[in-house]
Amino acid sequence: MERIFVKDIKIEEQKEVLVQGWVHSIVNLGKINFIKLRDKSGIIQLVVEEDSIKGIRNEVAIEAIGAIVENPKAPSGIEIKVSELKILGEAYYDVLPFEINRGKLKSKLEVQLDHRSISLRKPDQRAIFKVQGEIEDGFRSFLKSKGFSMIHTPKIIDSATEGGSEMFTVDFYDNRAFLAQSPQFYKQMMVGAGFERVFEVGHAYRAELHNTWRHLSEYVSLDVEMGFIKDEEELMSLEEEMINYIFKGLSDTCKSELEMYNIILPEEVKIPRIPLKEAQDILLEKFNKQCPPGNLDADGEKIFSKYVKEKYGSDFVFLTEYPISKRPMYAMPHESKEGVTRSFDLIYKGLEITTGGQRIHDYEMLLGNIRKFGLEPDNFTFYTETFKYGMPPHGGFAIGLERITMKILDLDNIRQSTLLPRDIKRLVP
Amino acid sequence: MERIFVKDIKIEEQKEVLVQGWVHSIVNLGKINFIKLRDKSGIIQLVVEEDSIKGIRNEVAIEAIGAIVENPKAPSGIEIKVSELKILGEAYYDVLPFEINRGKLKSKLEVQLDHRSISLRKPDQRAIFKVQGEIEDGFRSFLKSKGFSMIHTPKIIDSATEGGSEMFTVDFYDNRAFLAQSPQFYKQMMVGAGFERVFEVGHAYRAELHNTWRHLSEYVSLDVEMGFIKDEEELMSLEEEMINYIFKGLSDTCKSELEMYNIILPEEVKIPRIPLKEAQDILLEKFNKQCPPGNLDADGEKIFSKYVKEKYGSDFVFLTEYPISKRPMYAMPHESKEGVTRSFDLIYKGLEITTGGQRIHDYEMLLGNIRKFGLEPDNFTFYTETFKYGMPPHGGFAIGLERITMKILDLDNIRQSTLLPRDIKRLVP
Repeated sequence: MERIFVKDIKIEEQKEVLVQGWVHSIVNLGKINFIKLRDKSGIIQLVVEEDSIKGIRNEVAIEAIGAIVENPKAPSGIEIKVSELKILGEAYYDVLPFEINRGKLKSKLEVQLDHRSISLRKPDQRAIFKVQGEIEDGFRSFLKSKGFSMIHTPKIIDSATEGGSEMFTVDFYDNRAFLAQSPQFYKQMMVGAGFERVFEVGHAYRAELHNTWRHLSEYVSLDVEMGFIKDEEELMSLEEEMINYIFKGLSDTCKSELEMYNIILPEEVKIPRIPLKEAQDILLEKFNKQCPPGNLDADGEKIFSKYVKEKYGSDFVFLTEYPISKRPMYAMPHESKEGVTRSFDLIYKGLEITTGGQRIHDYEMLLGNIRKFGLEPDNFTFYTETFKYGMPPHGGFAIGLERITMKILDLDNIRQSTLLPRDIKRLVP
Repeated sequence: MERIFVKDIKIEEQKEVLVQGWVHSIVNLGKINFIKLRDKSGIIQLVVEEDSIKGIRNEVAIEAIGAIVENPKAPSGIEIKVSELKILGEAYYDVLPFEINRGKLKSKLEVQLDHRSISLRKPDQRAIFKVQGEIEDGFRSFLKSKGFSMIHTPKIIDSATEGGSEMFTVDFYDNRAFLAQSPQFYKQMMVGAGFERVFEVGHAYRAELHNTWRHLSEYVSLDVEMGFIKDEEELMSLEEEMINYIFKGLSDTCKSELEMYNIILPEEVKIPRIPLKEAQDILLEKFNKQCPPGNLDADGEKIFSKYVKEKYGSDFVFLTEYPISKRPMYAMPHESKEGVTRSFDLIYKGLEITTGGQRIHDYEMLLGNIRKFGLEPDNFTFYTETFKYGMPPHGGFAIGLERITMKILDLDNIRQSTLLPRDIKRLVP
């Protein structure tokens, strides 16, 4: 007999089915026992006679054959009257590290993460990754429909020249190499290589020295780069359209998962675009909040996000025109506005989830900027070579997959939306 | 005016269009010039008057506005009579590192790879990655339709206990960590965590000391793991069905790319399953070819593949029942056949592209096997813990993305199907 998933079981009185899964809970009433069987797709009640439950404990993997019976008292209105019950995977534990068959997980996040393959057995924990998977799928299919090519670029790289946060070093055949902080240079090079429009879903690495609720040492970056653009406005429009596409997808595919977290996604997302300087002025004037030069701090992002939500009804806001001094050497300077670049951040519910912008495409200008930043052009020839052979105007952005997942579901900590997180304190499991 | 891609241009006499791309070649006939413009999607002929081609050289990025004109002499039967021509990205080179606008690339592969974003400008080079992208898309959508969940697991790991080839070490906050050779342990754990069926597309790392045509230090692994299986036969059937699905997809989406490489994919793939011992016997008896104990060498794979092709008409063959001594400690021993496991390799056109099999799911049996292999169970608790809480029978396999791409297109070297390869001699670009 073919296995049926719980979600596919319909009321067909007395129909025999074969189900497989884990013992979610057992209620022993003497002669009759109720076992809740949990599979990937849901939970169903099994009615089992006393003599067949030998060796059955919570979390044992089982297979049951039985007849479908309607029972208004059963949690799903259906139960299975079991005629055959078999253990497929024995249990060897004394006690579970924490309860996973009722209410919310009560143990600390660190304990949940220590026993990740146990905490994920709770349906609401796996639901996070269903949502995450659909975000990624939406990202892919949206970009594919716009003519973007999927690429995979190296994560072991030669030079630690991307700037910004610290990098991890790798012993690469006795040479010092690094783990890529982002595919930035490579995605630009692939635009120049004739792919024109590329995206990559891949790991990015940051040797973050602080253990915060929003940083990971290893995360999944959704990267986009597009050639032949007019300016950064085109990129923001692309990202806005993509977010609408993803949200629409989630509303279709993740109805029950969103409900678990009490999330109602907006029908349409319209994202205000506000120059950073203006945001800083508003923060100072309206909230007496001082910002660090050329940026918002985490607090500023939160307060400003709240302000935008109240004023524009949007959970998102693009901050534009970041100053040259706060952006990497490849950021395109604004030709008519002094000291700022054609770059942007996207803030979502108080957290930066995207950095993006137009890049410099002229070879001489790029070399000049590398020098202006006090860097040595010779260290970048692997990257700048592409620019010698006709590089079109281009730009792009990146979204942190764990960040957008966390924020969509209103989670408190980025580790909740990471299957197996890595940070300064965590390298296992 | 909106940009149109070359592939979307149809014969609509005198219609004005805006095209963007690179100068593929120039033919100067004095007053009239023919420029071939190459974009992501194709090549079209522009007819340009003399005075507007100032500064135009091969590979300059340009934009042209003009009217569509039918011309049977033009390569595609259509040309554009240009009224406006604009340079978008200047060229700064003296000579191109190699010719990319006629025939086959003539320079050595190593030189092509040194200038990767130039060699990829040749349409037949980018075509390889169009095919690769569609293979990956097929893998994803096939598995999603079968109820598999996409996962991302860590590539920075704590222990070098996966066995097999050498691993790269990472300095992880002053601790010695490693780059994962495969997501093997994690994908099994995620099956046990209740996802049941998972797949991952991600980088895997091997510190290969030899520079061969078929090994990379960093490659993309298409990983599959499935719970509640009967045995390894189910896995082989799944992979066979998947390959048929992928091939069907490629025949639809990559018609012109397959034509470039003179590839006709079979309409249906039926894959013989032959025990390793039998293959070794055939090699010895029919081809006087000695095999290393418990395996085929690269030569043996080639000869046996040819034999299978002649006898069964199949480019693929599953080799089954690999000996315990040649498989990792988690491979499921065959309960009725002495000394062999429920594992398999898939050989395609003479090259191994998959290793897979059923895994041990019983906790005690797994610990026993770890000890039998002379390993210390305490080093594996992050992995074995899952098995204490009811692990169902399960198994899986992995496909090397660059390998299957190479073999589908009959390429000679795996670096041809890798955008930016990494090996013992190459860390740039």
